[in-house]
Amino acid sequence: MKIFTLLQVAVYLPSALALWPRPQNLTTGTTPLRLAPDFSIKISGISHLPKDLTDAVARTTNFLKTDKLQILVPDRGASLASTVKSAKTLQSLTISSISGTSTPIKSISEDAVAGLGVADESYSLRVPAGGDAELTAKSALGMFRGLTTFEQLWFDLGGTTYTLQAPVQIEDAPVYPYRGFMLDTSRNYFPVSDIKRTLDAMSWVKINHFHWHAVDSQSFAIVVPGFEEIAQKGAYSPSQVYSTHDVEDIVSYAAGRGIDVMIEIDNPGHSSVIFKSHPEHIACPEATPWSQFAGEPPAGQLRLASPSTTNFTARLINAVSSMFPSKLFNTGGDEINTNCYAKDNETQADLASQGKTLEEALDTFTQATHSVLADAGKTPVVWEEMALEHQVNLRNDTIVLVWISSEHVGAVAQKGFRLIHAASDFFYLDCGGGGWLGNNINGDSSCGVYKTWQKSYSFNPRAGLEEDQFDLVMGGQQLLWAEQSAPSNLDSHVWPRAASSAELFWSGPGGDVKTALPRLHEVGFRFRQRGVDAIPLQPEWCALRPNACDADA
Amino acid sequence: MKIFTLLQVAVYLPSALALWPRPQNLTTGTTPLRLAPDFSIKISGISHLPKDLTDAVARTTNFLKTDKLQILVPDRGASLASTVKSAKTLQSLTISSISGTSTPIKSISEDAVAGLGVADESYSLRVPAGGDAELTAKSALGMFRGLTTFEQLWFDLGGTTYTLQAPVQIEDAPVYPYRGFMLDTSRNYFPVSDIKRTLDAMSWVKINHFHWHAVDSQSFAIVVPGFEEIAQKGAYSPSQVYSTHDVEDIVSYAAGRGIDVMIEIDNPGHSSVIFKSHPEHIACPEATPWSQFAGEPPAGQLRLASPSTTNFTARLINAVSSMFPSKLFNTGGDEINTNCYAKDNETQADLASQGKTLEEALDTFTQATHSVLADAGKTPVVWEEMALEHQVNLRNDTIVLVWISSEHVGAVAQKGFRLIHAASDFFYLDCGGGGWLGNNINGDSSCGVYKTWQKSYSFNPRAGLEEDQFDLVMGGQQLLWAEQSAPSNLDSHVWPRAASSAELFWSGPGGDVKTALPRLHEVGFRFRQRGVDAIPLQPEWCALRPNACDADA
Repeated sequence: MKIFTLLQVAVYLPSALALWPRPQNLTTGTTPLRLAPDFSIKISGISHLPKDLTDAVARTTNFLKTDKLQILVPDRGASLASTVKSAKTLQSLTISSISGTSTPIKSISEDAVAGLGVADESYSLRVPAGGDAELTAKSALGMFRGLTTFEQLWFDLGGTTYTLQAPVQIEDAPVYPYRGFMLDTSRNYFPVSDIKRTLDAMSWVKINHFHWHAVDSQSFAIVVPGFEEIAQKGAYSPSQVYSTHDVEDIVSYAAGRGIDVMIEIDNPGHSSVIFKSHPEHIACPEATPWSQFAGEPPAGQLRLASPSTTNFTARLINAVSSMFPSKLFNTGGDEINTNCYAKDNETQADLASQGKTLEEALDTFTQATHSVLADAGKTPVVWEEMALEHQVNLRNDTIVLVWISSEHVGAVAQKGFRLIHAASDFFYLDCGGGGWLGNNINGDSSCGVYKTWQKSYSFNPRAGLEEDQFDLVMGGQQLLWAEQSAPSNLDSHVWPRAASSAELFWSGPGGDVKTALPRLHEVGFRFRQRGVDAIPLQPEWCALRPNACDADA
Repeated sequence: MKIFTLLQVAVYLPSALALWPRPQNLTTGTTPLRLAPDFSIKISGISHLPKDLTDAVARTTNFLKTDKLQILVPDRGASLASTVKSAKTLQSLTISSISGTSTPIKSISEDAVAGLGVADESYSLRVPAGGDAELTAKSALGMFRGLTTFEQLWFDLGGTTYTLQAPVQIEDAPVYPYRGFMLDTSRNYFPVSDIKRTLDAMSWVKINHFHWHAVDSQSFAIVVPGFEEIAQKGAYSPSQVYSTHDVEDIVSYAAGRGIDVMIEIDNPGHSSVIFKSHPEHIACPEATPWSQFAGEPPAGQLRLASPSTTNFTARLINAVSSMFPSKLFNTGGDEINTNCYAKDNETQADLASQGKTLEEALDTFTQATHSVLADAGKTPVVWEEMALEHQVNLRNDTIVLVWISSEHVGAVAQKGFRLIHAASDFFYLDCGGGGWLGNNINGDSSCGVYKTWQKSYSFNPRAGLEEDQFDLVMGGQQLLWAEQSAPSNLDSHVWPRAASSAELFWSGPGGDVKTALPRLHEVGFRFRQRGVDAIPLQPEWCALRPNACDADA
């Protein structure tokens, strides 16, 4: 007994390179290497250097100094002191364009908003066992992706930044063009600083879309030019708004980090708050009992059969659309409550005068809003009900978010639509908090149990699809609804869990939770070093002993 | 339709006084009252004024200026501007001893550690509709409880601190002497600053016991005089320890806030880490597969049959005991794994040589550790297995923590032991996070679903007991185990949920979740103003509209 115990204690070796997401091709050696004290990152042969690329280099340079992540073994690397001290040094990292010297390139920001899959995110990274490293890519965006990989190669030991596994050679590119994260800032408000911190963290794991569920029935915080009254009356308070400057700031901050901001103006449901400034446009505003009129309080939906409301909504969407450079615009379309319209005299009168059914009116309404987007050169994105439950003639290029159940993926593909995985049974980060209705003692979360990182990580993006439908999958995202979320639990709900889908949709499916966990621990430790409050997935004892806390260990 | 809707929008009036926990007797008026710009708190007629009482007064004075909690209605009180401006003013609060003038009183700190129910926590508070308010109590501890109530009477409107419900008269005292919160600082380490912030928050809702589960199999962070080697080898790192100074600091910080620190040195199970410094005392250290030897990795238990180990443990408990002034000392005793001892040659040899069964050895071992406590004038506290599953002759004054199931309360009472409610099915704050073992894709939390505040709030402390057993209930506590917890989710797991048991065991059972929720929202909002990251229980839309988000609203 004693013998195998003592042996077992000694087997915790330094972990493999903790890259997240896993690169497509990775070869490593066994040579210790440290950054030279005067290590520098250079950009070579690129004319008209984009400022956001030099900013990205500055951030990487800073992280190399400030991460100070000790290797995750019991002694945190102390026994490696002499190895690290005598290691060869890396003098520099040189970034260049694969297209050759003196090539003008677009900025990271331009690449980020160019459209789904338009910019090339691939990169090559070569870190020899001494001397100079090379990062090459076709685009500034690819260079930035490579920088976020380079940052993850290094550990700290008493101020020395080192790796044990030089030389390193990486060829990398994403499997899916859409890797996202959705945040609901309507149920509870999140200050700009929280959104920016989240964007930073997203970029570290190569998430490239921020789906901003900015407005819902509870509050409308975005100040929209020409529609300022909506936020004025619909925000929780004058300080809980996103000014036009805030929106520009968020969009530009995101783009500089390779992230496209897909705004969502959910309609015609989930829009009660517009009642405060435009009572004429909302059916069943704050009607009670709410459960007869909406999925959650307060009830209230845009009067989809009213030509005036249709025109108002189309103009609103046009105005919001011009605030966001993204080629994607999300018009929502989930959870339309028919009883709300059945009990609304104005809607019934509008339907009668037009001789339309509710579904026909929804089609007209949707054509109006989506043609605004088409005119602006944008692609509409909708929740799955618009494709599966309604008789709406969606444009062929519409992208559908599958949310109700991962089992609905096949039905969406059957209709020929491109889709984004966002299923509540795998990707909802707010599940498992119990019911939030006030007087419900044994209430359950609306989406059941907490979705662990293992659950989302093990999702199969091709399940339920025929082979010729595989290309319809644009990628996927995790989502945080905010009925029970706010800045106080933003980081703890999102990190490191949202990294699981980041790897799934960058590296592709089939990852093994057993080998992923030690790397994911390092994600969490590194995030915390950078000020993002990722939660521990296990006791620290486990984090320092790869796989010692597996079920079968 | 429109008519009832508009009416319904207008009914959100300012909430009632948001006191938490609910006082035993509360009468309020309808007169607006504001604090005078030169409002002050005076202490009258007490000789040898305890410094911790004047410190508490200073904290209250500061909170009255810095809380700046706007009333929870949609306009946050804006429409009350003229009412508040023209309100009468309160000039001062005078604190005095109910025992008469010039009475020397003990300090809050002395009261806090005097023993279960020894110090009198009752107080009377009278806030007239102008002039001077009075707080009287028999003890400094009672005065402090009254101060934490007084702080909660006030809202802010543009810098004016006001209430709408003067005069206020309160007579208050706790129903149960033990209102606790347990934190596990072994699975993951929590810096002293996090513990202090938690102690502050606990005191705001009158929680009076901090059950510190400081050591477990994963790490041993407390530096114990005479046993320094245990933390030296057993802490996660040299910076993740609680020095003797840290412990003194925590104990004194807690006591000054009316909180007794009950330390737990769990034994003979949950002690693997001692193996690192004292391999001779631990059976099955880090043995694998861990599931055959322990409830979670790493395995390892004190060799309870070894006279040397028994002596070592008793000396360790004696040394730890002298670091804590509390009259309570928790020796754990949960989840003893018999297979670990069955496979340990040394334990089997010890049992054979003494002619004892394992249970007899456990009894001897426990007598040794508990008599150390008795000699020090302390009361042993144990987890329920020691009373229900083992043949140990516990001292009559032993207090039992019921944790496995609330249904075991009756069995503990049947044995005549006093008990503390800590049942996993109501009070565990870490449930619902999913399984944490590494390679378990569909793993469940060890204690099932997330325990909502409504769940813990609705617990009946007398369920399963006969009337003549009611007095055995000392109170109860919520608990945070730290397999998946760390500073990054401490506040979000604990607050405002832990306030639910604080009210349950101070005010007594029978509270209604419907009327409690608006008050609990105010707890959360006030906590956030004070830097404790309580999570939102609902969308802010609901928090500003009492009961609008009830299931039947």
